[in-house]
Amino acid sequence: MRLKLTIAYDGRPYYGWATQPNSQTIEDKLNEALTTIAKQDVKVQGSGRTDTGVHADGQIAHFDCPVGLEMNPHNWVPALNTKLPKTIRVIDCVEVPADFHARFSATSKTYSYFLATTPVLHPMLNGRAWHLPRLLDPATLEQALQHYIGTHDFRAFAALRGNETAKTNYTRTITEATLTPVDGGYLISFTGDGFLYKMVRLLTGAAVQAAQGRLRLDDHLSLLDQPAKLPNGKSPFCAPGGGLTLTLVKYD
Amino acid sequence: MRLKLTIAYDGRPYYGWATQPNSQTIEDKLNEALTTIAKQDVKVQGSGRTDTGVHADGQIAHFDCPVGLEMNPHNWVPALNTKLPKTIRVIDCVEVPADFHARFSATSKTYSYFLATTPVLHPMLNGRAWHLPRLLDPATLEQALQHYIGTHDFRAFAALRGNETAKTNYTRTITEATLTPVDGGYLISFTGDGFLYKMVRLLTGAAVQAAQGRLRLDDHLSLLDQPAKLPNGKSPFCAPGGGLTLTLVKYD
Repeated sequence: MRLKLTIAYDGRPYYGWATQPNSQTIEDKLNEALTTIAKQDVKVQGSGRTDTGVHADGQIAHFDCPVGLEMNPHNWVPALNTKLPKTIRVIDCVEVPADFHARFSATSKTYSYFLATTPVLHPMLNGRAWHLPRLLDPATLEQALQHYIGTHDFRAFAALRGNETAKTNYTRTITEATLTPVDGGYLISFTGDGFLYKMVRLLTGAAVQAAQGRLRLDDHLSLLDQPAKLPNGKSPFCAPGGGLTLTLVKYD
Repeated sequence: MRLKLTIAYDGRPYYGWATQPNSQTIEDKLNEALTTIAKQDVKVQGSGRTDTGVHADGQIAHFDCPVGLEMNPHNWVPALNTKLPKTIRVIDCVEVPADFHARFSATSKTYSYFLATTPVLHPMLNGRAWHLPRLLDPATLEQALQHYIGTHDFRAFAALRGNETAKTNYTRTITEATLTPVDGGYLISFTGDGFLYKMVRLLTGAAVQAAQGRLRLDDHLSLLDQPAKLPNGKSPFCAPGGGLTLTLVKYD
């Protein structure tokens, strides 16, 4: 029986999602909780990694329920939450077909990024926002975000992992890149079929540079679909992890 | 030169506002920051205490600027924030008349209380909400809040401090007690000319008991203006501190 978990977390105390030796990660905490309950090794498969300090409202992971532990899927929610730190919460658990895969079955992901524009960062937003108290032109920011919509070669917005080859595919489709004024700043929302390593933070960083007058809109646009120009034309800034939240992962 | 500070804080790491020996309090942190900058003892006077774990968006305090340290009042904001932990932020600093007093000049205070009603408490609301995943009837909650509006004897909603006398005045005027649906729950907002010790949490606790069907509305109403009935008729519940935020202190 394959089960699909919806997980929310405050990323501040963690070195990101992915399991690491001797490290405090969200995947490790989930595996530990499952293993404690199952009294045998159980491992989750997440929809994708999130970096150090990045949050989630709707991270998705699947795991295979060990034989003999089958129960109403909803009962896994309190069972796991009792074993997890309060900064990680399982929101939902449902049964999925045996061929469901949290990573490979995902059809779209939505991330939000919070820009705080108040002169002083509110104490509750510490580690949850990019504090930009200086001039930020929202009209320019929106124009820069518009550049991203569509299918593009996004290699200018990919951090290197070290496993890149000549065949690495940097083409992704972004269907939504919006700016919403909220209390204390702006929320950027990105939806796409998938995102490269640190891509959302690099997209946000470049758009903010444009909105601060540090990057011309023409130069911003030139970062897209221009693999020939690289390695010079890289996104000029990676936005800090704390402002980023993985909000939604969709499946067919 | 008397200066008025507007202060926001995340109350989770602190034993409340008021200075305590060997304790981690917000007043202590402010006094330490001021004393470091002034190189002499400087103490703030707050508008009133907040309890352990209670937050503030707009706490007010005044202090007298030592001779020789006069500067543009706004320059105190970054000067203090550099010395303060990030969970305490000075939002504003303005000059006030020499007879201004953060506590005695205050004409009204507004507190908000967050009730989280989702089945699982979001990790970001840990220590910031009262989690009430079970049935809570908003119509009854609103009726109970309506009871509080006006001038009443609120002794049923006052925790004992140990310094009460026969002359202690328990009469206060509440001008606003509203319920607003928000993402993940409800926000209660109370405005009044002043609040007794733990009064907002006791008002909230009793109204929630009514909204959960644990207290009849008639019995709820009987808690007001009935000093003769005491000590039996006390508010049946003190809401946890983490849900409470001091949002605004007003002066003429």
